[in-house]
Amino acid sequence: MEKEPAAGQVSMEDIAALAKRRGFIFQSSEIYGGIGGFYDYGPLGAILKRNVKDAWWRDMVELRDDVVPFDSSIVMHPKTWEASGHVEAFNDRLVDCKVCKHRFRADHLKSREQCPDCGSKNSFTEERAFNLMLRTFVGPMEDSAAMAYLRPETAQGMFVNFKNIYQSARKRPPFGVAQIGKAFRNEITPGNFTYRLREFEQAELEYFVPDDGQDLKRFEEWVQLRKSWYSKYGVKPERLRFAELTADERPHYAKAGIDVEYLFPWGWGELESIAHRGTYDLDAHMRLSGKDLRFYDEASKTHYTPLLIESSAGMDRTTLVMLVDAYERETASDPAGKQTERIVLHFHPQIAPVQAAVFSLARNKPELVELARSIEEGLRPKFRTQYDEGNIGQLYRRQDEIGTPLCLTVDYDSLTGHDVTVRERDSMRQERVAIGAVESYLGERLAGP
Amino acid sequence: MEKEPAAGQVSMEDIAALAKRRGFIFQSSEIYGGIGGFYDYGPLGAILKRNVKDAWWRDMVELRDDVVPFDSSIVMHPKTWEASGHVEAFNDRLVDCKVCKHRFRADHLKSREQCPDCGSKNSFTEERAFNLMLRTFVGPMEDSAAMAYLRPETAQGMFVNFKNIYQSARKRPPFGVAQIGKAFRNEITPGNFTYRLREFEQAELEYFVPDDGQDLKRFEEWVQLRKSWYSKYGVKPERLRFAELTADERPHYAKAGIDVEYLFPWGWGELESIAHRGTYDLDAHMRLSGKDLRFYDEASKTHYTPLLIESSAGMDRTTLVMLVDAYERETASDPAGKQTERIVLHFHPQIAPVQAAVFSLARNKPELVELARSIEEGLRPKFRTQYDEGNIGQLYRRQDEIGTPLCLTVDYDSLTGHDVTVRERDSMRQERVAIGAVESYLGERLAGP
Repeated sequence: MEKEPAAGQVSMEDIAALAKRRGFIFQSSEIYGGIGGFYDYGPLGAILKRNVKDAWWRDMVELRDDVVPFDSSIVMHPKTWEASGHVEAFNDRLVDCKVCKHRFRADHLKSREQCPDCGSKNSFTEERAFNLMLRTFVGPMEDSAAMAYLRPETAQGMFVNFKNIYQSARKRPPFGVAQIGKAFRNEITPGNFTYRLREFEQAELEYFVPDDGQDLKRFEEWVQLRKSWYSKYGVKPERLRFAELTADERPHYAKAGIDVEYLFPWGWGELESIAHRGTYDLDAHMRLSGKDLRFYDEASKTHYTPLLIESSAGMDRTTLVMLVDAYERETASDPAGKQTERIVLHFHPQIAPVQAAVFSLARNKPELVELARSIEEGLRPKFRTQYDEGNIGQLYRRQDEIGTPLCLTVDYDSLTGHDVTVRERDSMRQERVAIGAVESYLGERLAGP
Repeated sequence: MEKEPAAGQVSMEDIAALAKRRGFIFQSSEIYGGIGGFYDYGPLGAILKRNVKDAWWRDMVELRDDVVPFDSSIVMHPKTWEASGHVEAFNDRLVDCKVCKHRFRADHLKSREQCPDCGSKNSFTEERAFNLMLRTFVGPMEDSAAMAYLRPETAQGMFVNFKNIYQSARKRPPFGVAQIGKAFRNEITPGNFTYRLREFEQAELEYFVPDDGQDLKRFEEWVQLRKSWYSKYGVKPERLRFAELTADERPHYAKAGIDVEYLFPWGWGELESIAHRGTYDLDAHMRLSGKDLRFYDEASKTHYTPLLIESSAGMDRTTLVMLVDAYERETASDPAGKQTERIVLHFHPQIAPVQAAVFSLARNKPELVELARSIEEGLRPKFRTQYDEGNIGQLYRRQDEIGTPLCLTVDYDSLTGHDVTVRERDSMRQERVAIGAVESYLGERLAGP
């Protein structure tokens, strides 16, 4: 499945190496040999992912008055997954090679004639269905415990609560419900670093609209909104595509569907799906639960089931896109004028884990250290900052690798001139800024394009 | 176990009723009859819990330069839980009544002589150990899938990564690692609303210190810091206690331990534990993995295992405390001067889901509606706001019930006077504020005491 990196693009090996070295992403339980499909976010990665989620949350929820937040549990009543169709149909088709015993997703095999691992001919078993939901057992004893699933998506928590939500929040369609949370899928072949995970985080927006003939227009508005969102945080437009699903590719109940895809080093991969799901989900839960989840319109005294437009985005994948998209290896002049190679992450200032680093040019000069530390401390409540000290070339190199937009250096002139050198990550341009003006300078520069 | 509410305190039934009515907390999968020990946060509850977590995160991580964040996976390599002792010892002791078949936690029974449910005498089975970890199976097929656990705490993810963390973040003890995330425990008797859950969220801080004789002083500093934290967000000091554990109550390796407890309507309940865990955790993982997790001190070229001070707080419990502690039912004058009962949540302004509501005094006056809406929209990027309209008495009553500190009303005088009435939640005092000054007024008032 792996392809050559697209021209000029980083390899996943480079990303994984940087991610480990700088503390973005580690293999889960690495000291015990790891566990396939699970990763941990290190000190910088935890902030990076948090920034990605916060950006989604702010734009999709906080700044809108037609979207309310929700936070449902990972373990739900198992009937939820009967109604949703996951118990019946959330399957991959698998085949085994009878010779080498390796197992494959049927849709990943180019041909059924020869095993790609051991080369045996006509060695495959019949296809078998494999349900992707992880199961657990809840209750006081093994023998009496009830089987339950770890949710494979957050959306169902919002559907089963639709009535509680619109009544308590006093909302009427069109309005949306949004949630960010963990979900689990027992992927047969997790891989491509944090792209295909067994434990992952989703950001889902369920937008309920009246059946007034405006639904396809509203669907298109959400597609445009999501396009602007990726663009706002600097994702390169030539590596992003919005692939429209044909009627054959969509579920039978869906009136429209778009896959948002990114050009990863191994090829195009899905980041998000935007779907017009009609009344399918609410209908399914009404049928199985026998409860009325229709919207009651007090003005016209009528009940109706709203149509649903869904945006479902992967937060680990979006975080990975931020890393891949920002990565550049380039040749640049070091402070001494020598041409050296540098790795730089061109993060958007709102996404960057560290927004401004403050350096003391020397480790062993208490007056420089003290001044630099006090500047960093003063900026910390407003920006994501980091103090460091030592060799300026190494300090820049390190901050470039973690994508810090601005570096402030306290040197000997700072003691008399009350100013610092500010160096910009991408252009590497430097200028002197008065210490008293640093906060407003950062405020402007970090607001982002 | 349930006791009478403490004098003047709310009952859990009142809290649960308000939580459902106003959209703070719903039973998970309610339309399917619910599932014991799992709850969902509604539109206001999702914001409330997020505010509690954000307050912890800001104070414990963002504002400190000696704490780095982390975000590990819920499913880890199962050896993690062997090393930690959870496989062996994370058990409850259970007994069954042979007559009525009811099951009890042995430590919850006042006497073994008589079943509290059916009254049978000497009807109990022997005690049996019941492991509280939820299990799942990860891997491509039922027959070959590997058993794994849902983590019962987030802490172990930080211990097994200790070396990756200190190396990539270039930190040296004393420094801390912090994480907020879901954990699972198969509680035998979940209950007391969201107090004893099977799925819950923890905020854990692991503070690694050198063995330099300052560890007990540092432990005490963390206790004081956590005291100030609860006090900062207005938790009533008379309902909070820091119970020191005796040597008998602590694990053998622990040099000190404190349980932070809150006086809930049913009695004192644990919110957080602060523990001096010595080198126990790192030692255990080094022993089982064979990997060196000691800190390497480059200055002295020596390796040592740092001591650990841990603060582990329940975020669902802290959210519940915010609701219970803020709740008051009081008699107050309505706008017409009549004495009526009001329910009010005295949330701290940083914790309140809505910080300022903006009202139009009349629904059917476009100029009032438009002005009120434009004020709300202008404030939304800076504060958590809500627009509403209609009967002013009802509007105040609703905002009091969800704990909104300030209500701004646009009336006919606003059109000519360019000002609004601002009404304060707790004192119910009102004053006129110029529309142009509203943003700075809110900035001051919502900064909190």
